[in-house]
Amino acid sequence: MTSERDVSGPQRPIGLAVVGAGYWGPNLVRNFAGSPHFRLNWLCDIDKSRAVRVLGPYSTVAATDDLDVVLADEQVDAIAIATPAGTHLDLALAAMRAGKHVLIEKPLAATYADGLRLVEEADRAGLVLMCDHTFCYTPAVRKIRELVHSGEIGDLHFFDSVRINLGLVQPDIDVLWDLAPHDISILESILPPGVEPLSVAAHGADPIGTGRSCVAFVTLQLTGGAIAHFHVNWLSPTKVRTTMIGGSKRALLWDDLNRMQRVTIFDRGVDLMPAQHAGAEDREKAFVSYRTGDLVSPAISEREALASVVEEFADCIRTGRPSLTDGRSGLRVLDILEAASRSMALQGTPVPLRESQRGQTGQPAPSALELAGQGSTA
Amino acid sequence: MTSERDVSGPQRPIGLAVVGAGYWGPNLVRNFAGSPHFRLNWLCDIDKSRAVRVLGPYSTVAATDDLDVVLADEQVDAIAIATPAGTHLDLALAAMRAGKHVLIEKPLAATYADGLRLVEEADRAGLVLMCDHTFCYTPAVRKIRELVHSGEIGDLHFFDSVRINLGLVQPDIDVLWDLAPHDISILESILPPGVEPLSVAAHGADPIGTGRSCVAFVTLQLTGGAIAHFHVNWLSPTKVRTTMIGGSKRALLWDDLNRMQRVTIFDRGVDLMPAQHAGAEDREKAFVSYRTGDLVSPAISEREALASVVEEFADCIRTGRPSLTDGRSGLRVLDILEAASRSMALQGTPVPLRESQRGQTGQPAPSALELAGQGSTA
Amino acid sequence: MTSERDVSGPQRPIGLAVVGAGYWGPNLVRNFAGSPHFRLNWLCDIDKSRAVRVLGPYSTVAATDDLDVVLADEQVDAIAIATPAGTHLDLALAAMRAGKHVLIEKPLAATYADGLRLVEEADRAGLVLMCDHTFCYTPAVRKIRELVHSGEIGDLHFFDSVRINLGLVQPDIDVLWDLAPHDISILESILPPGVEPLSVAAHGADPIGTGRSCVAFVTLQLTGGAIAHFHVNWLSPTKVRTTMIGGSKRALLWDDLNRMQRVTIFDRGVDLMPAQHAGAEDREKAFVSYRTGDLVSPAISEREALASVVEEFADCIRTGRPSLTDGRSGLRVLDILEAASRSMALQGTPVPLRESQRGQTGQPAPSALELAGQGSTA
Amino acid sequence: MTSERDVSGPQRPIGLAVVGAGYWGPNLVRNFAGSPHFRLNWLCDIDKSRAVRVLGPYSTVAATDDLDVVLADEQVDAIAIATPAGTHLDLALAAMRAGKHVLIEKPLAATYADGLRLVEEADRAGLVLMCDHTFCYTPAVRKIRELVHSGEIGDLHFFDSVRINLGLVQPDIDVLWDLAPHDISILESILPPGVEPLSVAAHGADPIGTGRSCVAFVTLQLTGGAIAHFHVNWLSPTKVRTTMIGGSKRALLWDDLNRMQRVTIFDRGVDLMPAQHAGAEDREKAFVSYRTGDLVSPAISEREALASVVEEFADCIRTGRPSLTDGRSGLRVLDILEAASRSMALQGTPVPLRESQRGQTGQPAPSALELAGQGSTA
Repeated sequence: MTSERDVSGPQRPIGLAVVGAGYWGPNLVRNFAGSPHFRLNWLCDIDKSRAVRVLGPYSTVAATDDLDVVLADEQVDAIAIATPAGTHLDLALAAMRAGKHVLIEKPLAATYADGLRLVEEADRAGLVLMCDHTFCYTPAVRKIRELVHSGEIGDLHFFDSVRINLGLVQPDIDVLWDLAPHDISILESILPPGVEPLSVAAHGADPIGTGRSCVAFVTLQLTGGAIAHFHVNWLSPTKVRTTMIGGSKRALLWDDLNRMQRVTIFDRGVDLMPAQHAGAEDREKAFVSYRTGDLVSPAISEREALASVVEEFADCIRTGRPSLTDGRSGLRVLDILEAASRSMALQGTPVPLRESQRGQTGQPAPSALELAGQGSTA
Repeated sequence: MTSERDVSGPQRPIGLAVVGAGYWGPNLVRNFAGSPHFRLNWLCDIDKSRAVRVLGPYSTVAATDDLDVVLADEQVDAIAIATPAGTHLDLALAAMRAGKHVLIEKPLAATYADGLRLVEEADRAGLVLMCDHTFCYTPAVRKIRELVHSGEIGDLHFFDSVRINLGLVQPDIDVLWDLAPHDISILESILPPGVEPLSVAAHGADPIGTGRSCVAFVTLQLTGGAIAHFHVNWLSPTKVRTTMIGGSKRALLWDDLNRMQRVTIFDRGVDLMPAQHAGAEDREKAFVSYRTGDLVSPAISEREALASVVEEFADCIRTGRPSLTDGRSGLRVLDILEAASRSMALQGTPVPLRESQRGQTGQPAPSALELAGQGSTA
Repeated sequence: MTSERDVSGPQRPIGLAVVGAGYWGPNLVRNFAGSPHFRLNWLCDIDKSRAVRVLGPYSTVAATDDLDVVLADEQVDAIAIATPAGTHLDLALAAMRAGKHVLIEKPLAATYADGLRLVEEADRAGLVLMCDHTFCYTPAVRKIRELVHSGEIGDLHFFDSVRINLGLVQPDIDVLWDLAPHDISILESILPPGVEPLSVAAHGADPIGTGRSCVAFVTLQLTGGAIAHFHVNWLSPTKVRTTMIGGSKRALLWDDLNRMQRVTIFDRGVDLMPAQHAGAEDREKAFVSYRTGDLVSPAISEREALASVVEEFADCIRTGRPSLTDGRSGLRVLDILEAASRSMALQGTPVPLRESQRGQTGQPAPSALELAGQGSTA
Repeated sequence: MTSERDVSGPQRPIGLAVVGAGYWGPNLVRNFAGSPHFRLNWLCDIDKSRAVRVLGPYSTVAATDDLDVVLADEQVDAIAIATPAGTHLDLALAAMRAGKHVLIEKPLAATYADGLRLVEEADRAGLVLMCDHTFCYTPAVRKIRELVHSGEIGDLHFFDSVRINLGLVQPDIDVLWDLAPHDISILESILPPGVEPLSVAAHGADPIGTGRSCVAFVTLQLTGGAIAHFHVNWLSPTKVRTTMIGGSKRALLWDDLNRMQRVTIFDRGVDLMPAQHAGAEDREKAFVSYRTGDLVSPAISEREALASVVEEFADCIRTGRPSLTDGRSGLRVLDILEAASRSMALQGTPVPLRESQRGQTGQPAPSALELAGQGSTA
């Protein structure tokens, strides 16, 4: 059993294979190779020459196109998968059935149903299933999560994210499935307990005729009257990576391209006075006051997020604890993606979410019928 | 008759009264006072002391709180109205019935129906009715209009505008009616012939409990598969004023807060090759190509837009031609605002537009009933 | 006597005339007209039509080209001069001889000797002589002054200012005399007690052949080993207005074109540990440590600086106290300008300053001969 | 003989050893390992464990602390040196005496005299001696060089570079020798034929008491009245990397931290009309006119500069041609650095340059005595 192998202590590195030598694979190779927690044994790709090229002429890591050999290798404790989403289910199931822990590039799977099968398999086998939602491990998102969870921001009012650039038009997925997983997983990771997405509306456009949306706007209604919104876009001439979060006490801006000042906290906002304090006659104006205080940008380290992903994966394998971005969290991301796709097909009509209880109650999830019913009254 | 007075030639300045000495009125006073085309006779406000304060101790312009006196003044040829939207109908009707040309601060009126009454009255009386959609007269928007109309941008793909800041929560209107008129009128003014908004979806949030939306996202479907989107927000800690326009040939970014480089044209984009040029096997990839060319920021003058509004108003009075932002254009803005409000009440369900023919056909606009029917099936 | 007229209390406004209706005059007119402390009686210019044009068709302020009439007017208590520097001496002397308080656009005079005559005349006559070093009255500079004087920045290490843009090539003065007065007066106003400029070196270039420097770099040695540097430039394609101040505790950046974040305080810097704390062997590395803490941008009001100049002038007239930018401070600016000019003529050889004692001792200033002697050994 | 080995054709990679596994060495290792032109055989460091650490656990490259073994290795054709400047002379001489081509991290050597010995040795031995002035190989500098050399900028008017950040205080060199080599080599590489530095003035400050300058300002007089200026600073709280170049036809700004728009060309500037075209009376004003045209930012590739350094090194070894940053160019950089240091010791008095003829005449360089004489009259 895998978990027994883990007991051997932190001294023995975890044997690892990377599957997929395409866009993201080389980053996994570099970071696993740089980690003292892992021994990188294999780089596997259906095109072996691509794996050889990625490793370069000076590497002792083995390249292969034979996944069976990798899965049969007893030295391999874990698999990191960086292949197209459509292949995640089969690859990850095979890996888990061979007793390997699994890290999967986002999104967890091509559908919510596939993702659910992976989560259930991991539960059954007692293996770590982690989704590589890399952005959740950036020092910026960790800082934001801390600021939101500690109450420094106050109640969440709005979350607005812009992730646009001249992007690669993907052959298999639209811009929503390509870019929004980042924003959804970030939102998921920073939401305080008790606040959750309730429904999704999405609008897309395919003005250049690729057969899939290249521009999309996604709106989520959250508990408590808050709103979240993402703009994802492959056709933007400039690259923008900003997330603005408004709260009852403070607001913050994360500009991921501003290295000198990635996260800025603003003591600025609009406050409502309780009605009894407002004068009778001039109530409407007295009602509202404005804070325009200082701005603070906390010092944030510049650690590569993927190195933290690798470390989290190691720690979860060693300890058995669920990761910040475990399978279940990957599943909530898929829920929102699927609902957004459905809304887009319905010209933007809001669609309620399956996963809105976030496991905080023992109640069974509402059936599709119940959801539809909620939808009509939402 | 007013039009006969106008014949007296460009030498005699047009007599003018400004009504409303609140937020915007002082700007009108300053610009009309600085124009050789006008003789500013009155500043009228229900609070005369406010009018006196705005004029200051060295002015020869008369202050009053008596509109009747102003309207009875034969020296006054035109009225500029800068009062709350709810008062526009009565004030403008009174002015036109007294034979005065009218310039009205945006929005034209509080409702589409009110706006229509003003347009019809202006037509009947042969008077100039102009809406002060100031942004349409900025050198930047004029340049953008020229770039779009001349075909330099190619077919319109998307229009994305962000107009957010820590704004004054208005006592009578929500953020949509406060800020979106700017974006809608800008969109209206730059759209090329044959492209028009078809339907609107809007999502709002009132997280601080003011009783009206403080954050709103508006999406418009345009003819030809293009999409327009506005983000308007009173709760943003930072001020952003950007509009991005993507086209088949070029894209452009207007950053109104970047004085050194307000408008930037990007020779960047995604192109689709005609299917026959793509190889049979690798069709999906060959299909798409990317342009990543130079960026150009045209020199743009720094003229105050309101000075151009004043000049346009004078010219329309002198010549009788409709202004760039005449009553009818103000009406189209009201149509979109009302549809957006309705969509917001319907949780974002898209609502079709009345004015989508933009006067290009003689067909009657659909009735409210027809609209409601379309709404439920959209 | 002027001072007796002042006793009449704050109720009676101070009678004022503006002299000079060129580039800066209209700003003085607007601000004095907007101040409750002043009654603006005259705008005087050698070209009366220019004064008429500046006032516009609705003003009750009198235009004239006859300074004698203005100076003879008993209603006029004070004169604000915005004419070329070469005329300051004669105009200000005439005004003071007529018993008027004087505000002079920077620089105080065309030469140090002229400036000294003005200071002496003001002392003799008991009149307010104030120099309109406008930037010293911006909320940003006031905040910076407070931060430096309160010790929050620690000991001053360096002051680096960049003031460049495509500027008007002046017919009578070079870029040094045109732009550096701003930087010098700002430096003067923020320097803490005990720190002062000791010598100046300046390098200029006239690459387009105008007969005067269009680009200049000025370096000041300050007491305590600190250094100040200004880059002033009429040929820069972009406008830059930044001042960076490094101190032993904190550093700050003032970016005057960044409205959202004009002043930023950085808890960043290099610290030296006392030698005894450093290990014997690894002394060189242990010696130095780095702070990379948070960044704070204090909320700063957006008040127009010239309105504060006007208020300060009124208050100094009412109370008799010297202004923040009194004649003596204007004189120190002239001292540095003249030394910089001399250094430029000497290809950048450093030139010591006359005024380096800043009035803190009763010692006579060194003679020109002594200065020359110091120069050769500096 | 080395040159004979080179004849073996492009097929056989060039055997290479990197010496120095400190700050820069790992970058050399990564780039040489990634180049098809080289076979990376050794990483040598006096601390072998550091070399082992840099290579990591998966590398087949050999680590050593024995330079003699490396130099005796017949497979090694070339050496890349990334050690402190004080060791460059001995290491490079040893390498060249062993018949190896040499690439040296900037600066070429610790003194001009040392650098000259290296250049002479390389000439004598017929080996490639190249200085790793990396910035000269960035796409941005190559583009700028092309723009200047092609005449698009016109005559050079000024060059102003700011290279500041919270930097590591070096144990052996001051900020001038640490950072200015970048700016000097960039200036050298873009200067058009016939324009060269004539003299240098430098001002430094050591406000924190490290025993060496931490802030420095360097001014160069160039032929034709142009001026160059560098600000280098280890104490700046923010990182700035800008170079502005003004010319008679256009100006350009290189902002190396602005990924979206590194190089911007401005059709902005000040023009002088020939005197005969200016009217007699208003000559001073008519003299000058202003261009304020468009701004263009050319598309520039994002290739890593060090990869181009590696390629240039390979090509020079293969063909025997001198590199863009050959030993002689490294020598000119040392000349300016030494003159700047001398000027700094003289409180900023300008110092003439040895290398100002740039090999364009056969005249002997002025002797030190002549230089001192010029210095006193400059």
